[in-house]
Amino acid sequence: MHFGSVAVVDAGGQLVFAAGDPHYLTTTRSALKPLQALPFVAGGGPDRFGFSREQVALLCASHSGEPRHVTAVADMLKRIGCTPADLQCGIHPPMFYAANDEIPPSDVEFTTLHHNCSGKHTGMLAYCRLCSLPTESYLDFEHPLQQAIRSAVAHLTDVPERELVAGTDGCSAPNYAVPLDRLAHAFARLATVTADERYGSAPATLADAMSSHPEMVSGERRNDLILMRAGRGDWVTKVGAEGVQAIGVRSRRLGIAIKVVDGNARGLHPATVAILDQLGLLDAEQRAQLESWREPVIRNYRGVATGRVTPKVKLEKRS
Amino acid sequence: MHFGSVAVVDAGGQLVFAAGDPHYLTTTRSALKPLQALPFVAGGGPDRFGFSREQVALLCASHSGEPRHVTAVADMLKRIGCTPADLQCGIHPPMFYAANDEIPPSDVEFTTLHHNCSGKHTGMLAYCRLCSLPTESYLDFEHPLQQAIRSAVAHLTDVPERELVAGTDGCSAPNYAVPLDRLAHAFARLATVTADERYGSAPATLADAMSSHPEMVSGERRNDLILMRAGRGDWVTKVGAEGVQAIGVRSRRLGIAIKVVDGNARGLHPATVAILDQLGLLDAEQRAQLESWREPVIRNYRGVATGRVTPKVKLEKRS
Repeated sequence: MHFGSVAVVDAGGQLVFAAGDPHYLTTTRSALKPLQALPFVAGGGPDRFGFSREQVALLCASHSGEPRHVTAVADMLKRIGCTPADLQCGIHPPMFYAANDEIPPSDVEFTTLHHNCSGKHTGMLAYCRLCSLPTESYLDFEHPLQQAIRSAVAHLTDVPERELVAGTDGCSAPNYAVPLDRLAHAFARLATVTADERYGSAPATLADAMSSHPEMVSGERRNDLILMRAGRGDWVTKVGAEGVQAIGVRSRRLGIAIKVVDGNARGLHPATVAILDQLGLLDAEQRAQLESWREPVIRNYRGVATGRVTPKVKLEKRS
Repeated sequence: MHFGSVAVVDAGGQLVFAAGDPHYLTTTRSALKPLQALPFVAGGGPDRFGFSREQVALLCASHSGEPRHVTAVADMLKRIGCTPADLQCGIHPPMFYAANDEIPPSDVEFTTLHHNCSGKHTGMLAYCRLCSLPTESYLDFEHPLQQAIRSAVAHLTDVPERELVAGTDGCSAPNYAVPLDRLAHAFARLATVTADERYGSAPATLADAMSSHPEMVSGERRNDLILMRAGRGDWVTKVGAEGVQAIGVRSRRLGIAIKVVDGNARGLHPATVAILDQLGLLDAEQRAQLESWREPVIRNYRGVATGRVTPKVKLEKRS
């Protein structure tokens, strides 16, 4: 059994549907990535360095380390005059293998480029280049880059900067916890705001890149890619570690944030699909596309079906 | 956050301490293994086939697929005239690698012998040999072996056989769910009964083998081995998949059963150590030995400490 909470918020920040505690204070982890890219994009960084729309999507990615991801990150680093050694994200086997239920080869040397956050870190370095800031200290909480990010997070979530709860992410970057409805609000704004008073068209640029190139935000067989493909351009989605999912819905001007409190994705994905369905966002084709995420069959090592995960979440109308 | 329940029961079956819902209905998974070995041991199987005490411990194991485990299982199979192909547990990379934070080599072919349940399955085949039963159908719910096991589970947990909730385990064997306090009762009996009215000395034989050879029940760096080593022969412990831990405590004539409802071991191990401490079972040395299990530090891929797991469970006195 996985417990959790859900907040569905409109573009004005009003809570419209909820389950559990919609104000639950949650780490955002990778769901924060589009917000972390805001200062760079608003500063005209993509044009300055000639980043493609696929590469803008990669700034917000938890990518799988597929060849297209690695190549595009390497190209960005070259464009900003940095190398993989400048990325301070660490190294892990590409998510590609887990997504395909494969064991990573033990005779291949992986690099920082394969880290699922290498696009985000490259965007952080790129901001330093854009603003002539030191790169070696780019992960320090008080580095001007991280201050700019904190300000962007506060702005888009509508949480006062002093109330942001800070922590260190799995990739060593500063990360922030916010109430679930505030994360939902940020995604409602990402998906709907065309001219933000402080960040101009940057939120829309990021949201468009993500929903146009979900294959750069996620990876084959992974949830954000499957979700955004099923959403046909209407949904901007980003998963975060420890059971976080944020979704912006353009057509309905809504943001959705979901947190499974024990952090297990097993509980998250079925709930996500059930919530999209309860909001009336799924037609028959989309329901079919997402069926294996909504009620995944549990199989053992011999392929015997031993159970099934079933979503139990029920949204309640608010306001 | 991981939610869960705890039952602490005396050898008479009385609940003495609890947290959450001590009657929570839980799958037992691998915590059932000593009970599944009862019919074979009570029937004189180990003597008949010349199994060592280490091999009796392996009947109850979720082993790591270390060389000592694989060799001992292969020897048992030979003694009963079976081969690894007769084991219907399936194949997975040995737990050894995960326990050592290593990626399994992709160029090694693993066999059924490496499956963490290969000892249990060998014991099941051995019972078939002992009783001249067919081996190819040994996992069928109505095979006489599985009937004998069901009867043993009902007896030791004191749950009527018709109330046992059946399911198929990860290794394809029948498994049973029981209320948490009933699992605790079974382990209190395992650890304390010297002459059971139906199974004679078999419970004691199994408990002695487990606590004398914890290295055969578990594996290096894994929780049951660390726990039983710290217990210095006083504790008989068995973890089960999906957040289950059962412990029999000889000196206090108690059984302990813990279930983390979301199934995550991250929540289970800290709770286990906290409970042992609250029951007054830890001296300073044991507390030190188990400290890294009680409050594990969370580190990211660069080795940066990003957090810590902290047990919050509080036992309440009952009866």
